[in-house]
Amino acid sequence: VSAATTTPTSRLILIADLAGTAVFGIEGALAAMQGGLDLLGILVLAFATALGGGIVRDLLIGAAPPNAIRDWRYSAVALLAGLLTFVALPAIRDIPGLWIVTLDAAGLALFAVAGTEKALDYRIHPFVAALMGTITGVGGGTIRDVLLAQIPAVLRIDIYATAALAGSIVVVLGRYSRLPPAVAAIAGGLTCFALRLLSVHYYWHLPTSFR
Amino acid sequence: VSAATTTPTSRLILIADLAGTAVFGIEGALAAMQGGLDLLGILVLAFATALGGGIVRDLLIGAAPPNAIRDWRYSAVALLAGLLTFVALPAIRDIPGLWIVTLDAAGLALFAVAGTEKALDYRIHPFVAALMGTITGVGGGTIRDVLLAQIPAVLRIDIYATAALAGSIVVVLGRYSRLPPAVAAIAGGLTCFALRLLSVHYYWHLPTSFR
Amino acid sequence: VSAATTTPTSRLILIADLAGTAVFGIEGALAAMQGGLDLLGILVLAFATALGGGIVRDLLIGAAPPNAIRDWRYSAVALLAGLLTFVALPAIRDIPGLWIVTLDAAGLALFAVAGTEKALDYRIHPFVAALMGTITGVGGGTIRDVLLAQIPAVLRIDIYATAALAGSIVVVLGRYSRLPPAVAAIAGGLTCFALRLLSVHYYWHLPTSFR
Repeated sequence: VSAATTTPTSRLILIADLAGTAVFGIEGALAAMQGGLDLLGILVLAFATALGGGIVRDLLIGAAPPNAIRDWRYSAVALLAGLLTFVALPAIRDIPGLWIVTLDAAGLALFAVAGTEKALDYRIHPFVAALMGTITGVGGGTIRDVLLAQIPAVLRIDIYATAALAGSIVVVLGRYSRLPPAVAAIAGGLTCFALRLLSVHYYWHLPTSFR
Repeated sequence: VSAATTTPTSRLILIADLAGTAVFGIEGALAAMQGGLDLLGILVLAFATALGGGIVRDLLIGAAPPNAIRDWRYSAVALLAGLLTFVALPAIRDIPGLWIVTLDAAGLALFAVAGTEKALDYRIHPFVAALMGTITGVGGGTIRDVLLAQIPAVLRIDIYATAALAGSIVVVLGRYSRLPPAVAAIAGGLTCFALRLLSVHYYWHLPTSFR
Repeated sequence: VSAATTTPTSRLILIADLAGTAVFGIEGALAAMQGGLDLLGILVLAFATALGGGIVRDLLIGAAPPNAIRDWRYSAVALLAGLLTFVALPAIRDIPGLWIVTLDAAGLALFAVAGTEKALDYRIHPFVAALMGTITGVGGGTIRDVLLAQIPAVLRIDIYATAALAGSIVVVLGRYSRLPPAVAAIAGGLTCFALRLLSVHYYWHLPTSFR
């Protein structure tokens, strides 16, 4: 692993992964502050939101200890994101909502694609690998809402987990079609990213009942 | 494993296991629809309710990746059960309550027995193995209720987890008494099934306080 | 492991660990009884509160099956503590609050130190090991509150998780400074214990917002 991180591509992937971790960590901290948690609660929710999805995926595919535990940089970035949110809340509140939604969609796409690929690498069946990609994307937000004693928002509203699932399925189909892995990854990521942003723009929802 | 599934007995066990998965998946989807979740939330709760207990057991006994992740048929059946509930809700609502309770009791008995036996196979201490059987039976419903931000029903009401525990203990005692494994399994399953149904019929409850 | 438990020191550690398990089990059972759970719910919350933190830590650091599953004495002690609370509630209610707080602080210190050390033994990065120690201390209480559909108290109020984190950091720093492990452990434990009790006495809190 450490050898692999010296190539430019893998370095780029690591940076993107840590950036996604930071975005999710900020969102977890914001939710914690809205819920009235103290500083440590804020850090815990930053950690859980940023890293929970990947940790659950790694436990489920048998990759123990999870990467987010094995590599200290992930928890460092998540906790720093939480601390930054705590200290610089007014500045972070001033970030336009569209930026937040866009960054979040990018993080979701990244996590879903990376999660699907890791599950495939661990020889998980492609159908299940797409579910693992979805869990990677939405698991952290689910744990965050459970810790706030709320029904997870991703299960109730919007095209969110659905976008992660769609992107994950595209990755799997791309691999099946023997596309180069990078092409499958980019196609899956764009699918998730675009579907998420379009759904926000057009107020798309999944049905809650049939007919 | 794949060789084993070609014997008639193991095929029967697999079919029973998938049938239990379907029953629990339908119940998870019904709870999700009552909670107002969207289609994806319904599928997630079908998945979590049907497979959560077995996944937690496998993580706890060191059987990673869990069988429900390793074998794609489990998630396929759980998600199909969720989809079926979504599409055919009126028909499913017409199923008499007694049928649902009976099928659920059968699923509970099956999961508790199978969970206890798997824990024993992994050389877990018999006392702990009975707890693992109970977790297999009630873990999915517990996760479902946590995701719905409710105190898990199995911890509050009725003889439910107690029936799973009783069946699991009978399996352990049967193994100790050197009964043939099939006999121990059937005795444990019948104990759980009968205790659950009798408790529903006679409104049996556990006490919430002593004296 | 079984050979190691024959030395006086390791025997002392095991007894302390089981005593901490009993204290946390009693607290879990008390919370369950306040929440109106039935006897089985009370036992489940005793189990989850006493053993949840160590189980999550072991899953995260790759120590499967978790020690609390591998060694039947942990679940036996946790369940007995729950049963004792159920049967002898009036007597337990008569225990002065200061005793409970003190015993709980001792259990928290013990779990945090033991969790940090185990993570270091599993070659987890020291920074992450301190987080694992914190999770060992507060994970059980967090799961207890999630099962009661409440925002975990440790995330909202008091210096509690903070005390566990501080003790864990002292253990890590002590190891870095090449102190004898026993000295690092005692320094970490005393830090956690003292910080927790002082915070109760002086009503110390973490801030919930900056400025």
